[in-house]
Amino acid sequence: MTTTSYALQEIAERFGLTLQGGSSDVRVHGVATLAGAGTGHVAFLANPAYRKQLPDTHASAVVLHAADAVHCPVPCLISADPYASFAKIAALFEAPTGTEPGIHPSAVVSPSARVSEHACVGPLASIGARSVVEAGAIIGPACVVGEDCDIGADCVLAARVTLVTRVRLGQRVRIHSGAVIGADGFGLAMDAGRWLKVPQLGGVTIGNDCEIGANTCIDRGAIEDTVLEEDVRLDNQIQIGHNVVIGAHTAMAGCVAVAGSARIGRYCLIGGGAGIVGHIEICDRVTVTAMSLVTHSIHVPGVYSSGTPLQPNRDWRRNAARFKKLDKQLGALARKIGGRLPPSED
Amino acid sequence: MTTTSYALQEIAERFGLTLQGGSSDVRVHGVATLAGAGTGHVAFLANPAYRKQLPDTHASAVVLHAADAVHCPVPCLISADPYASFAKIAALFEAPTGTEPGIHPSAVVSPSARVSEHACVGPLASIGARSVVEAGAIIGPACVVGEDCDIGADCVLAARVTLVTRVRLGQRVRIHSGAVIGADGFGLAMDAGRWLKVPQLGGVTIGNDCEIGANTCIDRGAIEDTVLEEDVRLDNQIQIGHNVVIGAHTAMAGCVAVAGSARIGRYCLIGGGAGIVGHIEICDRVTVTAMSLVTHSIHVPGVYSSGTPLQPNRDWRRNAARFKKLDKQLGALARKIGGRLPPSED
Amino acid sequence: MTTTSYALQEIAERFGLTLQGGSSDVRVHGVATLAGAGTGHVAFLANPAYRKQLPDTHASAVVLHAADAVHCPVPCLISADPYASFAKIAALFEAPTGTEPGIHPSAVVSPSARVSEHACVGPLASIGARSVVEAGAIIGPACVVGEDCDIGADCVLAARVTLVTRVRLGQRVRIHSGAVIGADGFGLAMDAGRWLKVPQLGGVTIGNDCEIGANTCIDRGAIEDTVLEEDVRLDNQIQIGHNVVIGAHTAMAGCVAVAGSARIGRYCLIGGGAGIVGHIEICDRVTVTAMSLVTHSIHVPGVYSSGTPLQPNRDWRRNAARFKKLDKQLGALARKIGGRLPPSED
Repeated sequence: MTTTSYALQEIAERFGLTLQGGSSDVRVHGVATLAGAGTGHVAFLANPAYRKQLPDTHASAVVLHAADAVHCPVPCLISADPYASFAKIAALFEAPTGTEPGIHPSAVVSPSARVSEHACVGPLASIGARSVVEAGAIIGPACVVGEDCDIGADCVLAARVTLVTRVRLGQRVRIHSGAVIGADGFGLAMDAGRWLKVPQLGGVTIGNDCEIGANTCIDRGAIEDTVLEEDVRLDNQIQIGHNVVIGAHTAMAGCVAVAGSARIGRYCLIGGGAGIVGHIEICDRVTVTAMSLVTHSIHVPGVYSSGTPLQPNRDWRRNAARFKKLDKQLGALARKIGGRLPPSED
Repeated sequence: MTTTSYALQEIAERFGLTLQGGSSDVRVHGVATLAGAGTGHVAFLANPAYRKQLPDTHASAVVLHAADAVHCPVPCLISADPYASFAKIAALFEAPTGTEPGIHPSAVVSPSARVSEHACVGPLASIGARSVVEAGAIIGPACVVGEDCDIGADCVLAARVTLVTRVRLGQRVRIHSGAVIGADGFGLAMDAGRWLKVPQLGGVTIGNDCEIGANTCIDRGAIEDTVLEEDVRLDNQIQIGHNVVIGAHTAMAGCVAVAGSARIGRYCLIGGGAGIVGHIEICDRVTVTAMSLVTHSIHVPGVYSSGTPLQPNRDWRRNAARFKKLDKQLGALARKIGGRLPPSED
Repeated sequence: MTTTSYALQEIAERFGLTLQGGSSDVRVHGVATLAGAGTGHVAFLANPAYRKQLPDTHASAVVLHAADAVHCPVPCLISADPYASFAKIAALFEAPTGTEPGIHPSAVVSPSARVSEHACVGPLASIGARSVVEAGAIIGPACVVGEDCDIGADCVLAARVTLVTRVRLGQRVRIHSGAVIGADGFGLAMDAGRWLKVPQLGGVTIGNDCEIGANTCIDRGAIEDTVLEEDVRLDNQIQIGHNVVIGAHTAMAGCVAVAGSARIGRYCLIGGGAGIVGHIEICDRVTVTAMSLVTHSIHVPGVYSSGTPLQPNRDWRRNAARFKKLDKQLGALARKIGGRLPPSED
């Protein structure tokens, strides 16, 4: 894909790493895993689970912690944070996207929309009334930008992204294919035995440097906006309900669901498949493990979990059957021995 | 967006509310939250969690229960159901969509399709062979309507909805962006060590006034149709398997998954992320709480749950470890004291 | 849809079934359920839950196990595997899709792409630079095929599928609407208080005969490819993280989430809504039940589960409250009786 190459010394200097054990003029032209690397590749070791692959690597250099250098058979690029350093090195070898400024002739742009001449609108995309696309933004093939949307400078919408209506993106926001931003929130009132739709009059505001995964949905607010502060990172298949507020630098793994009007702090990490009910608050720096359900506000930073551990089904069935009678059985045991148990309610 | 305004008295009369404490000629031009409202806004109080915001509101009027009126510093619109009343008031202020009847020149319509001259087909949409679009229906930008689909009067398909094949919508059905209705059900038979695809010959039938959320999927039936009765409301990212039947007025929050051939009653409420296994029946008026898994038929109306509560991870780990041995430990305790526990199986 | 008909004897011979109790010249023209069948229909009985419908069926023939034949009021087509036999019979009655080879005039094909003259590219689809579409492949309406993708012979992409970049499909791969294959993996490194995006330089390789459900996502690898071996079957709304490897013939039900770099064996069955954390290995022939979370590698084939059973909410709340104190309460009981419990850790 690319024939660009860099001397190890050049990489070390550019990213503040210490080159150890290597000739400064060794050149590399790509990145690879420890196990898959060959001559000309830079590999990295950050997750200890892969340490066993280090002695056999054929990489031309490995980015790693100083403590691992002794086990490395090839030149080392020593870093206090090998994963972050590797990310920067890998970016040197990314293939450029083949996009040019301009509006593809098959795209449909409303006469009242405003598209910068330095933006790119891909084939079969459409831009709705009164929407604005700033300079450097890339609107991928088959994207639909609805009415009254703002797309800030240098945003990248991959193929087939939908901004429904009243979606405002800051700068450098990146949205992946299939994402739907600004659909109606799920607002219903029961009225004489039938559902009545509650109009969704708000929008969505997304801060600078956010990234939103494939097929993720962020509904627009009922009255005020749904808000992502800057540098929020959402993986794929996530559902964000209306009027949710997500603090800066929070990251969520795939398939998380956040119900309406929840407020989530800054620097939170939400594990895959976790759920957060509506109208609660989570403070800064909370980690929720995978597939846990948050049903109450959290006011203390830390790691939180729910669920039970995986077991062979035969064992699990016996334990699950006990769970169904847990209150009665523990109570009976306690009465039997005339004892008192620690209170079961917090 | 709009400069329409209404006198409070006019709103009270139109929706059967009691105006209390306000001059009948005060006019309002929009809706807002209690905390965000200013002059000219109607706010509402339905969820008690927001009662603390009432004394400080700057709204021109608040829709609320009679019991809350005493704490309201501004005119009250008293309602037996403030949320439903608010929904009706908010609808007065919805911006009209900019759609006109007609087929956008960039749309692709099969010669054998029939589109009412009073329907709207948006840019870059396509309508397949033998499909019908009735009067008043709106097909948003980039929608794909496949073969043999019927779209009833006044349906609204937002941008980028897909009806795959043999999908029949009643009247006033509303489908949000990214939804896929009528894809193949997941039918597989293992045959000599390889999967054999089971043809999916049915369709999908959706009743009047249903609403289907963004990126939600409803598979078509293997033989007979998958069915949503009237006024079913599905949030985003939901998966409905083939041959499921969902009773009228049932609502499901985001990320619910329903496996094939399950039958769900009327007026059920299924919480976010809940799962329902295949080939079971759930009676009318069942509520399933968020992220619960329904593995057996339910014959008694009521509220059902599974899972464990969220805890700090350190506590959770200890309890989860006990769960893995629950049957053995409770059994050992019971034997020790020569006692008998209540049976652990239902 | 079709008027093709077949004699029962002809069906029996074609698929190796034993016709019992029927005149060999009875003809059938379609398939149906036991309850819905009428004259001219073949029905089937595989799941014992439907055995009660057998005595009242009006089908012209039923595919079933020999043991059920005695209760069948109509001719039997006896099979050792009625569901697989039914799948083959049903395929006789599938309506042909209305696709013809050629590129629809509204499609946008990059000059550097290569599309076989025996392939079909539907309306409003786009094919990116350097991508290849082999003979017999069908690219549905509004699909987006990005740069550097290979689509093997006889693949079928339903409407509105997205292959983002560097996606290589084998032969006869079938992908349903809304699926997104090859989006950026979720790679982030925290760097001085802000997220740093890790470039995603790999692709996705999908083997022959795989099927991928509607709105399912498969991210491309960070360095090496994400891989599905042959005959993998994924239902709708599934999330597959970057660098996952899924062994041949494994099937996953809807809404499963697999985190990055997990390796899953062959012939595994993953239940709906289950989660699999990253960087673990699951051996061949593992079944995970619905909504279970796999947090550690599995080295022994078998069935695995987590979670608790559904209960009426009132009972569940009492038991869940006990779970929160399980370690303390069981410990207190054990101390009280001077006993020792089986260890709670494995």
